[in-house]
Amino acid sequence: MIDDAEFIRGKVPMTKQEIRVLTIAKARLRLSDVVVDVGAGTGSLSIEAAMCCRKVYALERNDEAIELIRRNVEKFAVGNVEIIHSEAPRGLERIGAIDAALIGGSGGRLTEILDAVDKRLNVGGRILLNCITIQSVSKALEWLRVRESYSSDAIQVQINRLERVGHINMARALNPIYIISAIKEA
Amino acid sequence: MIDDAEFIRGKVPMTKQEIRVLTIAKARLRLSDVVVDVGAGTGSLSIEAAMCCRKVYALERNDEAIELIRRNVEKFAVGNVEIIHSEAPRGLERIGAIDAALIGGSGGRLTEILDAVDKRLNVGGRILLNCITIQSVSKALEWLRVRESYSSDAIQVQINRLERVGHINMARALNPIYIISAIKEA
Amino acid sequence: MIDDAEFIRGKVPMTKQEIRVLTIAKARLRLSDVVVDVGAGTGSLSIEAAMCCRKVYALERNDEAIELIRRNVEKFAVGNVEIIHSEAPRGLERIGAIDAALIGGSGGRLTEILDAVDKRLNVGGRILLNCITIQSVSKALEWLRVRESYSSDAIQVQINRLERVGHINMARALNPIYIISAIKEA
Amino acid sequence: MIDDAEFIRGKVPMTKQEIRVLTIAKARLRLSDVVVDVGAGTGSLSIEAAMCCRKVYALERNDEAIELIRRNVEKFAVGNVEIIHSEAPRGLERIGAIDAALIGGSGGRLTEILDAVDKRLNVGGRILLNCITIQSVSKALEWLRVRESYSSDAIQVQINRLERVGHINMARALNPIYIISAIKEA
Repeated sequence: MIDDAEFIRGKVPMTKQEIRVLTIAKARLRLSDVVVDVGAGTGSLSIEAAMCCRKVYALERNDEAIELIRRNVEKFAVGNVEIIHSEAPRGLERIGAIDAALIGGSGGRLTEILDAVDKRLNVGGRILLNCITIQSVSKALEWLRVRESYSSDAIQVQINRLERVGHINMARALNPIYIISAIKEA
Repeated sequence: MIDDAEFIRGKVPMTKQEIRVLTIAKARLRLSDVVVDVGAGTGSLSIEAAMCCRKVYALERNDEAIELIRRNVEKFAVGNVEIIHSEAPRGLERIGAIDAALIGGSGGRLTEILDAVDKRLNVGGRILLNCITIQSVSKALEWLRVRESYSSDAIQVQINRLERVGHINMARALNPIYIISAIKEA
Repeated sequence: MIDDAEFIRGKVPMTKQEIRVLTIAKARLRLSDVVVDVGAGTGSLSIEAAMCCRKVYALERNDEAIELIRRNVEKFAVGNVEIIHSEAPRGLERIGAIDAALIGGSGGRLTEILDAVDKRLNVGGRILLNCITIQSVSKALEWLRVRESYSSDAIQVQINRLERVGHINMARALNPIYIISAIKEA
Repeated sequence: MIDDAEFIRGKVPMTKQEIRVLTIAKARLRLSDVVVDVGAGTGSLSIEAAMCCRKVYALERNDEAIELIRRNVEKFAVGNVEIIHSEAPRGLERIGAIDAALIGGSGGRLTEILDAVDKRLNVGGRILLNCITIQSVSKALEWLRVRESYSSDAIQVQINRLERVGHINMARALNPIYIISAIKEA
């Protein structure tokens, strides 16, 4: 588990530690796994994933984010992250079979991304979505509802940090995140 | 119910609309009531209270806040708010019997404030606390626990605003607030 | 504000006090208003609304719920609630112009209900939705997004009750509710 | 990560999966660590810890819980969990130096337990508390506040499960948990 402050960050939004921890745990990564991180942002999830699996493709369209991923990959010295500077779902065409997909950003094309991920996902593979909008959650649940080969569950996570200010602790809310987990059963 | 944006605000923290609504509702104000608002801040709660009871004392120690209360009282044209520029519990000495006390800020002297409020509170009167720190909640619950003349309940309220950004709605969390309600039964 | 325990309840789910308070406040009811409560359940919202407006239509399809509404209307002696035993949106055909619609249950036909409400809603009128599913929130936001005559906002409310157990207070979570408020501007 | 349903459970409350995942991650366990789980309950945390460290002492006073821990240890075939049927802090006397303490139940004696843990905790060691009451959080924060050798942080975690019911997903709230993490810096 890496602290948020250890990552090099710009203005690119970063998945917070608790959400990374839950996402990686629910992805049930194995050392032999090949993983794609769609909308990798600062690369924080890619790097945590890279520490427990064989290979991670970090897919990202934003120039500033690509640079941050590069610097974070270097800082954490993970040699198994391959950065793909492209937009999803197009960038997924360069990737072969995968065991897990971590989907953070979707740029409004979530359904197409899920279709593209599905084509590459091995049986037993997992899809983990971090959503911050009602619309993404709704689309993802609808996509999963009509696909009987997947079993899934979904949670909303709300974290309040009890920040110490002198002798007292004030609760500061982080924005809630939806985590959707799906397993391709067949 | 007044929108947050209608109040004149400086850098003084303001009780958000939903919390004001719940606090005022739980205070069960009647038109004949005399109310004190301890740590009145921008005066938002004082003004909402003034619209449904006889008299409101707005107690506040901060200079900038006092000026904001004055301007908001003027803007909303409520003639029954008396501003007391003083620190609690000392400022409470100027006030006679009360039917309800709304306690927002306590400046770390919550126990003394509760003692001073208790002396002035009529039987049947209500105390409403809005707490943002674990320490205040803990103190208030401890104060109430050993006072059998009060019945009370406490909730934590977390509000997420689903802000529209183009075609999507992103959840933005407000900091959680504890609302403690107590009635002086005897 | 009425306590939850004061309502006669069966197995029909009831809108909790804090949600009722926020819903009624955001509906900005005036004494001259005509209101419809769609999916009235136990009638708790209808009764709170009836105490601050001219007329409330309580629309409900479930037999057991209808009986509970009758008994609650009698208990709280509100003479201005008219119960309509019918399914929405069909039951709405019996109603003329309205100033506010409170929509709790939709039975999966939310879009049709919103269309029917829209036809009867006066300019300046308000729609208040209490949603417990992602799908309802998503449908309601989509309905509102393409209707420029409405301005709206949406929140998610999470209440934790700090229940006293001996000398301690344990947080018990209520299920989160989405409250969507819309005003027909033109 | 183990699913909640895989543990053998009686009427003993069990730490939910997401809270276990966050607690274990924040405990930053290493393979060489000796860990004590105070108020082990069903043993769910002990077993997750046992899978990533050398030795776990599961301390529990309740007879039914002790039996559940035994059965879960057997089911998950973890050979490095030693069950201590005793009340904390007394049961801690049987244990030598430790690298991490997971404190779930405290039976109201949290301060004494923290003192006893502190005596045995190696420099660099971690204390992880899962609290469900305001009083425990408050006591733990107060204990930490006056001990400069510890650095700490605290969060409140609220999880809502989006349970599928037919074609819709209803949010069901889990009770919120406070997770306090402390590191003995010197």
